[in-house]
Amino acid sequence: MKIAVVGLGYWGPNLVRNFLSIDGVEGVVACDTLPRRLENIRKKFPTVETTSSFDDIVWRDDIEGVVVSTPVSTHYPLGMRVLKAGKHLLLEKPMASTTTEAEELLDLAYSKMLTLMVDHTFVYTSAVQKMKELITKGDIGDVLYFDSVRVNLGLFQHDTNVIWDLAPHDISIMDYLIDGKPVAVSCVGVNHFSEYEDVAYVTVHFAEKLIAQFHVNWLSPVKVRKILLGGTKLMVVYDDMEASEKIKVYDRGVDVKGEDAVYKKLVQYRTGDMYSPNIDTGEALARMATEFVDCINTGKPSISDGQAGVNVVKVLEAANISIKAGGRRVDLSYLSKSNSRSLISIPTFSN
Amino acid sequence: MKIAVVGLGYWGPNLVRNFLSIDGVEGVVACDTLPRRLENIRKKFPTVETTSSFDDIVWRDDIEGVVVSTPVSTHYPLGMRVLKAGKHLLLEKPMASTTTEAEELLDLAYSKMLTLMVDHTFVYTSAVQKMKELITKGDIGDVLYFDSVRVNLGLFQHDTNVIWDLAPHDISIMDYLIDGKPVAVSCVGVNHFSEYEDVAYVTVHFAEKLIAQFHVNWLSPVKVRKILLGGTKLMVVYDDMEASEKIKVYDRGVDVKGEDAVYKKLVQYRTGDMYSPNIDTGEALARMATEFVDCINTGKPSISDGQAGVNVVKVLEAANISIKAGGRRVDLSYLSKSNSRSLISIPTFSN
Amino acid sequence: MKIAVVGLGYWGPNLVRNFLSIDGVEGVVACDTLPRRLENIRKKFPTVETTSSFDDIVWRDDIEGVVVSTPVSTHYPLGMRVLKAGKHLLLEKPMASTTTEAEELLDLAYSKMLTLMVDHTFVYTSAVQKMKELITKGDIGDVLYFDSVRVNLGLFQHDTNVIWDLAPHDISIMDYLIDGKPVAVSCVGVNHFSEYEDVAYVTVHFAEKLIAQFHVNWLSPVKVRKILLGGTKLMVVYDDMEASEKIKVYDRGVDVKGEDAVYKKLVQYRTGDMYSPNIDTGEALARMATEFVDCINTGKPSISDGQAGVNVVKVLEAANISIKAGGRRVDLSYLSKSNSRSLISIPTFSN
Amino acid sequence: MKIAVVGLGYWGPNLVRNFLSIDGVEGVVACDTLPRRLENIRKKFPTVETTSSFDDIVWRDDIEGVVVSTPVSTHYPLGMRVLKAGKHLLLEKPMASTTTEAEELLDLAYSKMLTLMVDHTFVYTSAVQKMKELITKGDIGDVLYFDSVRVNLGLFQHDTNVIWDLAPHDISIMDYLIDGKPVAVSCVGVNHFSEYEDVAYVTVHFAEKLIAQFHVNWLSPVKVRKILLGGTKLMVVYDDMEASEKIKVYDRGVDVKGEDAVYKKLVQYRTGDMYSPNIDTGEALARMATEFVDCINTGKPSISDGQAGVNVVKVLEAANISIKAGGRRVDLSYLSKSNSRSLISIPTFSN
Repeated sequence: MKIAVVGLGYWGPNLVRNFLSIDGVEGVVACDTLPRRLENIRKKFPTVETTSSFDDIVWRDDIEGVVVSTPVSTHYPLGMRVLKAGKHLLLEKPMASTTTEAEELLDLAYSKMLTLMVDHTFVYTSAVQKMKELITKGDIGDVLYFDSVRVNLGLFQHDTNVIWDLAPHDISIMDYLIDGKPVAVSCVGVNHFSEYEDVAYVTVHFAEKLIAQFHVNWLSPVKVRKILLGGTKLMVVYDDMEASEKIKVYDRGVDVKGEDAVYKKLVQYRTGDMYSPNIDTGEALARMATEFVDCINTGKPSISDGQAGVNVVKVLEAANISIKAGGRRVDLSYLSKSNSRSLISIPTFSN
Repeated sequence: MKIAVVGLGYWGPNLVRNFLSIDGVEGVVACDTLPRRLENIRKKFPTVETTSSFDDIVWRDDIEGVVVSTPVSTHYPLGMRVLKAGKHLLLEKPMASTTTEAEELLDLAYSKMLTLMVDHTFVYTSAVQKMKELITKGDIGDVLYFDSVRVNLGLFQHDTNVIWDLAPHDISIMDYLIDGKPVAVSCVGVNHFSEYEDVAYVTVHFAEKLIAQFHVNWLSPVKVRKILLGGTKLMVVYDDMEASEKIKVYDRGVDVKGEDAVYKKLVQYRTGDMYSPNIDTGEALARMATEFVDCINTGKPSISDGQAGVNVVKVLEAANISIKAGGRRVDLSYLSKSNSRSLISIPTFSN
Repeated sequence: MKIAVVGLGYWGPNLVRNFLSIDGVEGVVACDTLPRRLENIRKKFPTVETTSSFDDIVWRDDIEGVVVSTPVSTHYPLGMRVLKAGKHLLLEKPMASTTTEAEELLDLAYSKMLTLMVDHTFVYTSAVQKMKELITKGDIGDVLYFDSVRVNLGLFQHDTNVIWDLAPHDISIMDYLIDGKPVAVSCVGVNHFSEYEDVAYVTVHFAEKLIAQFHVNWLSPVKVRKILLGGTKLMVVYDDMEASEKIKVYDRGVDVKGEDAVYKKLVQYRTGDMYSPNIDTGEALARMATEFVDCINTGKPSISDGQAGVNVVKVLEAANISIKAGGRRVDLSYLSKSNSRSLISIPTFSN
Repeated sequence: MKIAVVGLGYWGPNLVRNFLSIDGVEGVVACDTLPRRLENIRKKFPTVETTSSFDDIVWRDDIEGVVVSTPVSTHYPLGMRVLKAGKHLLLEKPMASTTTEAEELLDLAYSKMLTLMVDHTFVYTSAVQKMKELITKGDIGDVLYFDSVRVNLGLFQHDTNVIWDLAPHDISIMDYLIDGKPVAVSCVGVNHFSEYEDVAYVTVHFAEKLIAQFHVNWLSPVKVRKILLGGTKLMVVYDDMEASEKIKVYDRGVDVKGEDAVYKKLVQYRTGDMYSPNIDTGEALARMATEFVDCINTGKPSISDGQAGVNVVKVLEAANISIKAGGRRVDLSYLSKSNSRSLISIPTFSN
């Protein structure tokens, strides 16, 4: 099997490197329109074939899977061509610019029985895997809230806001970990220096008694990557800036005794031990790449499949609508394919 | 001058202790309806006079100032009686249950030329004073955002939500530090165990390009008290859980060159030194108590005066309305006295 | 039973307060030669009887136990009088200025069957108790090393060095935790500003393959109180400056397979989970005071008895000899009563 | 100019990579006796010439500088051959196994006017450069102590102890930063699992009132790399595990007023601000490699020259002698070339 990597900017070379070292991948073909980038790849990875023609990639018979690591606005057109050509597709996150586009990609992949994956790298980290395990085994109990902070100084994007830049990581983690049903999104923020917001707070509302919030910020003097996950049985702090002890699991919570317990002041706090599972620090990207090859070979579903990609895009799109509407709650059902036209008629909220 | 302290629950005894040691305070009279609490005060502070009669406090001629440290629902009736009796008034935070009540107290104090203060203790800390100094001197430049996190495990209140319990501290700090004009509030959250929310995010929108957010949470396994303040020139992290180095000032930010700078990618990051000013750890409550006595004696305005109290209550009340309306943006002007009736007609937001 | 507290400087009032609240203690008598201190005690604790006469304390029949919290040079003469008067004795740490004095106190208490305790407060903390439990249950395996750092800025003492000021805490913890047999002490350090050392490193050598080191320093810009305890099965970090998570237990270590394993490179690292037991933060001093009363009542041995006091003084005295001898190793057996004369003949080490 | 790198184990490939990217270096020749390592280099760096013959390296005319990154026991013989062949020499740290060897290398380089450098990488970090700047400008005042901790779990070496493995880094930093004259070394430690010590404390005594200590440990559950540097004017904490804020400078210290100030209790503590200079995180190894090329070209002295190498080896050798002698103080003058024979007669210290 040969894999093509399209788009060799910041992230593409990492994808090339990872696919090169996967057993079963016979060759990697790298594609970009900039000759400088192709040359750079040839220098670093002499065995990689390069081309500046996307058509080449699409029509060559020996390429089974295509990885698209180009700007998000091109994911849909490029991805559709890949799928139409009958090739398996891995899209860089976020999957597409709109829910409609993402869902079309998903439908096409489904109808053609092709693997469609999105590079939600973080769900392949040992830290997130550990959290998933705690949730799946029931150790955490019911999830009460998911709070994420991803802030740092820059890097300002000039074609998108801080939400589309930073939030996909944490939204994909939330989507992976939490079984609840997101029903609406609200989002507030400010654009200080351009039309694009640089500080934002995205909230996901659920059908269940559960809330998720994402603080993303390009203007923070310190770099923070932290998730707080509260459950009825255990609570977890995931601090990605820690060299070790990234995950801390607290045997803490609230026990409510009886139906009317709170009114009767029968809320009791549990304050037990904390433990920090030892987690390996292998490269998540390597695991993601391996999963793409496995899914192609076996047809098995991926933990970051097209549906996961759609879920993330839906929240991002809703956040964009909400922030322009002053934080108004945007129902996610409006963003589904059949309903998507109705978005046009949503009036701008004026207070 | 004698000072009366009414309400001797958790916080009252601290007020008694602090007023006892202020020069110029000749005596402290402590008042509560529970005999056990009065006895406790007499044991700890043998020189303090005690009474179970609030009428006593109001009508005694030798008491010049009254400190009301009772449940918030009683602040308005008790405070009005104190002011009507011509005595100076210090209210525990939050100042009142509604903006209307708070404004009536403020108006009465104003018309009777009495000192009206609210115990926003945190604005008297050296840390907040240092931040104020940096802002006033112009060192920070324009404030871009104010982000606060105040989370811990419990203590569940059975008559109020986490917003009214934890947010007044940070809202009063924001009100003190930031000169911008708050225009609206939105708030989202969840009540997991009772009718009262235990996790909430309060956002204050400003007329300026500025946003403030407050994360309050009774269900966090770890205790966090942290404020991030971004300015165009400097950025500050205030971590109240640090034993020393509570305040860190970062010479970091964004320089935008030219009108269309961002589009032209002329945004430049500054990443300079950090410094942590040495701040004393004297008791803020002692300074607040001293200021009350000073204000009584001199008529000078306080940094936590009645207007500050009104400002805080307004945000809290708006947050309560917003959270019930699914996060809808609530215009603060609706909460002003003259407009307050109109609140009744605000429909519950249904999505 | 009445308890007398002699010496009301920095620590004495804390002892008074704690003994006052112990069931079974009918009264506390406070003694100091400075009238100001006595007055201070009467003001704070109206029920406490005061006296400026140590003779009073010694000869009164109603006083069963005497707590001596005076400068260390007076522990021996005052302590001997207390014991000779047939009263139980609690000495502030360190127990005495020399091993000889400490041992005489111990012998006298033993022969008169009186309780003799030393206020090694730290061994009563939940953190140290937890470590003791881990060691006693065998969870830690063989102890490999004990490394302690206790540094801060000041407070310079003008009658003793940093070793006698800061090291007793950690030496008493080591003495309590470790079963090994200390055989020698070496110590290096510098006196920058007076005849008394302000930076020092004390090493305790054991008969076993085990080493303990104590870094004490009055010239550190940051306050550190940290102990590293390495065992063959588990390793512990005790950081007393942490608000919570003071104790972290690591399932890490080295497994050596076979007799000649290391030579054959069969050393294997274990890197497992970390856990942080939840420990209560009750006052250790209260527990120590309670134990003194219990020991008086029941005759049971204390975890900080006279022998523990002797052990700590022995290390301190040896450290003082070693530091003057340029770090020379001082055999602890020289400091035993019978051998103590021979110390005189130890030549000053000249390099 | 061509540069040869001899020894392609763990560190060698890093040296190859760095020398490859230096302007003025026309080619890198890599040398090792293991074919597998040579192949590995050819794969990663296709432009690098490889050879298994050290003779080749020594006799080729086009190679000006040779980097020796082999086990320490071979530094002397290989280094002597390089110098005798008239080539410039860069030795991996530590420079040699004994002071005598190191001094012979230094003498030969000196007499042949060749550049001799040792790869003390840490002195090229921005953090250490910043500390040097503070000392050189006089900001720190007189240095009072240097305390270093470098501990982690493993990696056990099977041919040397923890001192020779971990301490060279910190000793070279100390040698670079501190102008005082080291006069003696004492060292204590334990070998738990083999003949080689795995926990050790090295102390360097100075002619001045100044002490340096190095805690090195292969058995620590946590990784610590921390230096505390106390001066009369400022104090510095250098924590290499911090992602940012590696250096913190504290305006803290002790002011002594008058000759007999301490006795008169006139010691005053200064507790001022802390600041953390922003330091770049460029690769120190690249700077070291560049300096080697510069020194070859210009004959300028290096900050990690042969004398620095000798200084470090002297402390290491003395530490080894001291630890075997139970911590006895070893005079550094014994280790000078002329005196080195006398070491043989130093009796094993028995207490």
